[in-house]
Amino acid sequence: MRVDGRQKDELRPIHMQTHYIKHAEGSVLIEVGDTKVICTASIDDRVPPFMRGKGKGWITAEYAMLPRATEQRTIRESSKGKVSGRTMEIQRLIGRALRAVVDLDTLGEKTVWIDCDVIQADGGTRTASITGAFVAMVLAFQKLVEIGKLPDVPVKDYLAATSVGMIEDAGVVLDLNYAEDSKAQVDMNIVMTGKGQFVELQGTGEEATFSKEELHQLLETAEFGIQQLIELQKEALGEIAQKIG
Amino acid sequence: MRVDGRQKDELRPIHMQTHYIKHAEGSVLIEVGDTKVICTASIDDRVPPFMRGKGKGWITAEYAMLPRATEQRTIRESSKGKVSGRTMEIQRLIGRALRAVVDLDTLGEKTVWIDCDVIQADGGTRTASITGAFVAMVLAFQKLVEIGKLPDVPVKDYLAATSVGMIEDAGVVLDLNYAEDSKAQVDMNIVMTGKGQFVELQGTGEEATFSKEELHQLLETAEFGIQQLIELQKEALGEIAQKIG
Amino acid sequence: MRVDGRQKDELRPIHMQTHYIKHAEGSVLIEVGDTKVICTASIDDRVPPFMRGKGKGWITAEYAMLPRATEQRTIRESSKGKVSGRTMEIQRLIGRALRAVVDLDTLGEKTVWIDCDVIQADGGTRTASITGAFVAMVLAFQKLVEIGKLPDVPVKDYLAATSVGMIEDAGVVLDLNYAEDSKAQVDMNIVMTGKGQFVELQGTGEEATFSKEELHQLLETAEFGIQQLIELQKEALGEIAQKIG
Amino acid sequence: MRVDGRQKDELRPIHMQTHYIKHAEGSVLIEVGDTKVICTASIDDRVPPFMRGKGKGWITAEYAMLPRATEQRTIRESSKGKVSGRTMEIQRLIGRALRAVVDLDTLGEKTVWIDCDVIQADGGTRTASITGAFVAMVLAFQKLVEIGKLPDVPVKDYLAATSVGMIEDAGVVLDLNYAEDSKAQVDMNIVMTGKGQFVELQGTGEEATFSKEELHQLLETAEFGIQQLIELQKEALGEIAQKIG
Amino acid sequence: MRVDGRQKDELRPIHMQTHYIKHAEGSVLIEVGDTKVICTASIDDRVPPFMRGKGKGWITAEYAMLPRATEQRTIRESSKGKVSGRTMEIQRLIGRALRAVVDLDTLGEKTVWIDCDVIQADGGTRTASITGAFVAMVLAFQKLVEIGKLPDVPVKDYLAATSVGMIEDAGVVLDLNYAEDSKAQVDMNIVMTGKGQFVELQGTGEEATFSKEELHQLLETAEFGIQQLIELQKEALGEIAQKIG
Amino acid sequence: MRVDGRQKDELRPIHMQTHYIKHAEGSVLIEVGDTKVICTASIDDRVPPFMRGKGKGWITAEYAMLPRATEQRTIRESSKGKVSGRTMEIQRLIGRALRAVVDLDTLGEKTVWIDCDVIQADGGTRTASITGAFVAMVLAFQKLVEIGKLPDVPVKDYLAATSVGMIEDAGVVLDLNYAEDSKAQVDMNIVMTGKGQFVELQGTGEEATFSKEELHQLLETAEFGIQQLIELQKEALGEIAQKIG
Repeated sequence: MRVDGRQKDELRPIHMQTHYIKHAEGSVLIEVGDTKVICTASIDDRVPPFMRGKGKGWITAEYAMLPRATEQRTIRESSKGKVSGRTMEIQRLIGRALRAVVDLDTLGEKTVWIDCDVIQADGGTRTASITGAFVAMVLAFQKLVEIGKLPDVPVKDYLAATSVGMIEDAGVVLDLNYAEDSKAQVDMNIVMTGKGQFVELQGTGEEATFSKEELHQLLETAEFGIQQLIELQKEALGEIAQKIG
Repeated sequence: MRVDGRQKDELRPIHMQTHYIKHAEGSVLIEVGDTKVICTASIDDRVPPFMRGKGKGWITAEYAMLPRATEQRTIRESSKGKVSGRTMEIQRLIGRALRAVVDLDTLGEKTVWIDCDVIQADGGTRTASITGAFVAMVLAFQKLVEIGKLPDVPVKDYLAATSVGMIEDAGVVLDLNYAEDSKAQVDMNIVMTGKGQFVELQGTGEEATFSKEELHQLLETAEFGIQQLIELQKEALGEIAQKIG
Repeated sequence: MRVDGRQKDELRPIHMQTHYIKHAEGSVLIEVGDTKVICTASIDDRVPPFMRGKGKGWITAEYAMLPRATEQRTIRESSKGKVSGRTMEIQRLIGRALRAVVDLDTLGEKTVWIDCDVIQADGGTRTASITGAFVAMVLAFQKLVEIGKLPDVPVKDYLAATSVGMIEDAGVVLDLNYAEDSKAQVDMNIVMTGKGQFVELQGTGEEATFSKEELHQLLETAEFGIQQLIELQKEALGEIAQKIG
Repeated sequence: MRVDGRQKDELRPIHMQTHYIKHAEGSVLIEVGDTKVICTASIDDRVPPFMRGKGKGWITAEYAMLPRATEQRTIRESSKGKVSGRTMEIQRLIGRALRAVVDLDTLGEKTVWIDCDVIQADGGTRTASITGAFVAMVLAFQKLVEIGKLPDVPVKDYLAATSVGMIEDAGVVLDLNYAEDSKAQVDMNIVMTGKGQFVELQGTGEEATFSKEELHQLLETAEFGIQQLIELQKEALGEIAQKIG
Repeated sequence: MRVDGRQKDELRPIHMQTHYIKHAEGSVLIEVGDTKVICTASIDDRVPPFMRGKGKGWITAEYAMLPRATEQRTIRESSKGKVSGRTMEIQRLIGRALRAVVDLDTLGEKTVWIDCDVIQADGGTRTASITGAFVAMVLAFQKLVEIGKLPDVPVKDYLAATSVGMIEDAGVVLDLNYAEDSKAQVDMNIVMTGKGQFVELQGTGEEATFSKEELHQLLETAEFGIQQLIELQKEALGEIAQKIG
Repeated sequence: MRVDGRQKDELRPIHMQTHYIKHAEGSVLIEVGDTKVICTASIDDRVPPFMRGKGKGWITAEYAMLPRATEQRTIRESSKGKVSGRTMEIQRLIGRALRAVVDLDTLGEKTVWIDCDVIQADGGTRTASITGAFVAMVLAFQKLVEIGKLPDVPVKDYLAATSVGMIEDAGVVLDLNYAEDSKAQVDMNIVMTGKGQFVELQGTGEEATFSKEELHQLLETAEFGIQQLIELQKEALGEIAQKIG
């Protein structure tokens, strides 16, 4: 039995409030249990220098936490004057994941800026960010379609992410909250598409290791959770959901 | 007539949702029209080096905007690696204003960290931050009282802030939104107490100047607005409101 | 009676040595009692990016203290690798104040760089900087007129600044030195024009507040001091003084 | 057929020159094809603040490239004043991987500093770093044993890493060089122990995705390579090899 | 004939105004032609970490230029957020030079902070800084003697610095101004003591080289200048001059 | 007798392994006793902004140490976020020295990037860097000649560097290792050409001074060493050696 009463393969309650920030081309407030992330997608009509002249688009992401998103106040990265390794790793992951399902040729020379700002953290902030960022990005694309700047939503498939882990005495569990994450021996973040293809797989033993059989079980559990997350993305997107794939 | 249909001396709709962030000792989401700020108050049992051994407390504030709080995406200060002059000026203002109404001797050697994070901006973010931060701080003090770490809420008076300005053809107006702020010739931020005393007064001619008569009118209008803001703070605080002063 | 024998509404001795630095287009060494500031004005034929193509000029200011301007040596901001919030606040104030009296359209697409370097500090460094910077700027404009790069000195009015404050047992005093500033309950910096219009008004209660009556008295005293400062600016500028306004 | 004539499941030639740097407690120059990395292990008798008083050791890693390790000269991170996200990600990976096979309790309150400096790069620098760092670390532990500062080499199992990937027309290949890495659709880094347990698994689709069957094949190929790498580590360690596990 | 009418072995006019900054323990405004440097010496009762517990003192120096010391405004190093290589090189030189003539054992565990701030630059700022800093340091030591914190001025010998150079068509010249320095083929800075011993010798061919004979002539000329500088230091120090050596 | 058995005027064993790094246009691993430096020369077809349009080339150098090049691990400058004064001083020295023997007009608008990375340090790293960098640079020029991008190797003379010093009881010694350098009273780095001309001369008394006679002896000893270093450079360069001068 888990600390919050969930089954081993049960997601936390998920809510997505679309159009949460009025200025952004696309935005969503995603809640995964007590984890709350504001995801916005902004469109810039330029691409970074290394992409210029290729006729292709680019997707880049930034991730941050409010200082009091966490139980103890954390120092702002702007005050420290540098972005931590953890933040950079997450930012790179979000951008890479989204690029895997977008048709960058159709997008053309535009940059999608994804911002994921965690206003309350309780584990799983990076996977919630990816799941929410996908929705914000689709909303931004739809806006471009509406104003005639894109012929169609250039998204090839759905994309969502969750975490699975191994906890002593409990075994494999889905969608770890902070308390679970802190004591997990193996921690795995998985990003999958609507068709069940892998996009990212990051499994880590925390001063521990895992076998092939355990890996198999972790992947099965993750897939089960991601399918549900994609159903919830479809609900949140409403009519636009049909334009994907 | 103003762009959003308000009277010259009319505030925008104000909402304060207390206990917005579960981890913080005190928190509020304040909305002033389309301006939305998450204010949290965190208690640290130490004071900064220059205050050590004096038996007095300290209050310090940090302020930031999400990149997409604004109409055009703004670059994160953590990415730039430094905090702008504007941000520092606002942070210093918030801290200084709150210290004026707190009995720092009663607080004892503790630091109150105020975080004001603007999630949507439409003018008046610094004054909304002060008004919201006061509420978050009182809630944090109340929590300390409840767990026996403070004998009483060490706050001497209410404190709220608003902006007034002078706009061509319209004259003096209260609580400027972004559109008004951009074209104001004179811009003034005023912080006052429940008893009508000034705490901060910052008036600036934007490539313009103002006379003593105009100053008088600006101050009258600001006071009228601040009295209403303090009534709303009392409502938001409920029973705790009586513990102040 | 004040610590240095002055009347409550008496300025410290003021000296301005024009053309102090040979390389600068305009320069002055201003002394306000023991506070000494080197102010220079440099002309750059470009404007910052946000001003380009508007046909208007810009004025920007930088402020710094030598490490041993103060009683205790202060660490250089270049060694710390960042500029403090106080410095940024002062820099923004100086630039904003000067822009209020300059006809930026007549100036055209040029930037005036104001540098205020405090070589000895005894309170009132920011107001001395503004008063001195005004003179340095006018000298630089006059130089541009002489070499045919400007038709006329594009300055609409005089501009000077001073501080007033409230001190326990003494009440309102003019032009505070460091000893007075340290114990003032209310501290106000005022920037005014030759015609008696306000440009900037920054009043702050230091863990204290002030009433409307006190504000009135502070403003009267400041105006009395600023009128004298402007007479001294006219003396320092000599013949050029007539070209203003 | 691969660009350098290798079989799909063939490693590049591997050399490890132990005791390469005289000052370091442990060091190795590892060559994987044209990729050359100097790995050193240094022992510090303190642990970082978050580990103090726990009686446990810590392992941390730093990774860098010489500017001319790459085909085009890359700018030094010291000149840029900040470490890139890629570097941080690799540093975190190396440290985490090594910690999985070290008995941190037996190590006691010491920090092992791993430095991996790529002097020539041709793909697979992070996996070569892990494989080499393991050897350098064991040598440093052995040195501590010899001088009586450790009872035994506190290493539970062997640890090595390699990359596998999917390349159009070629399918799954082992130990990608730079040319292969640049065109790979799926790129996976795997860290395994001598007993065949997973420690880290990082698979990424580069604007592509991969199926469960493909994942299975990638993992099989990686395991085949890692077993060979571990044999080579044993040879390089000579007699010390028996002290592990 | 030189550009300013001097003989080849003639110094520029030198002035030293002692006690220039009231807060500093020792200070001087040194003018070498149009080069003007404010030198202050501050005493700190601690030494840097690497010197603790040795019972010896330390001398450290910082050097900076006001932005408009130069013909074209230079960007502040505090704005750039880092100190240039040239500045660091000069700082290290000043500190090292002064340490050669101070009895650090007699000084005891104190740090002398030397600040050299160039307010107007016309070549030779580093050598003027050393010559001036020596005077400021002696004045600071004298102050410590007067208040009983030092038994005697712990200075073993005089110390001054100048530049010599080789200029096409003119040959070896003494004390180069900026115009001469810009076209010199060989540029040498020499620091010597009152007894004619070398402390520092830095000779550089600027895209040129120099022979042993030329070196000999450069050194002779420098010594001739330094002897005069030391006489001027003695004048500036008045009675204290006798306490040295 | 010296600590490693050398005569006073004896160099340590010198080895130079050319073409050490495959990607660089020119490279060498230079060993001077236990000091080992990887020197590479990279050619960039642009010049820095201050050199543009002059039709001349530029040479710039960067220098760094691996953390474990030293007996105690030193912190990476990339981790500290800034380059030390010592590093900058050495970088400027290397670049300046090489520019003295290169015909920058013949080179044309290209930049030679020299990178000197110390992988093991035992004194004399800066002089070993210059001696090795010269060889790497010549190799890079030869490569440009071979591919037709330069008519000839644009190098006017050989260039090498060594250190000399004065040690108590031993007097003047050549090519100091770290143990000797640490206790030297006078430390001098000398850069000379094949024809025996000086390029750089940096002599420093470490809390000590030196006379003209001692200077003479130091220079003689250095010249004796540099002549041998140049012979070794010729050997390393083989046939290309004839193209210089």
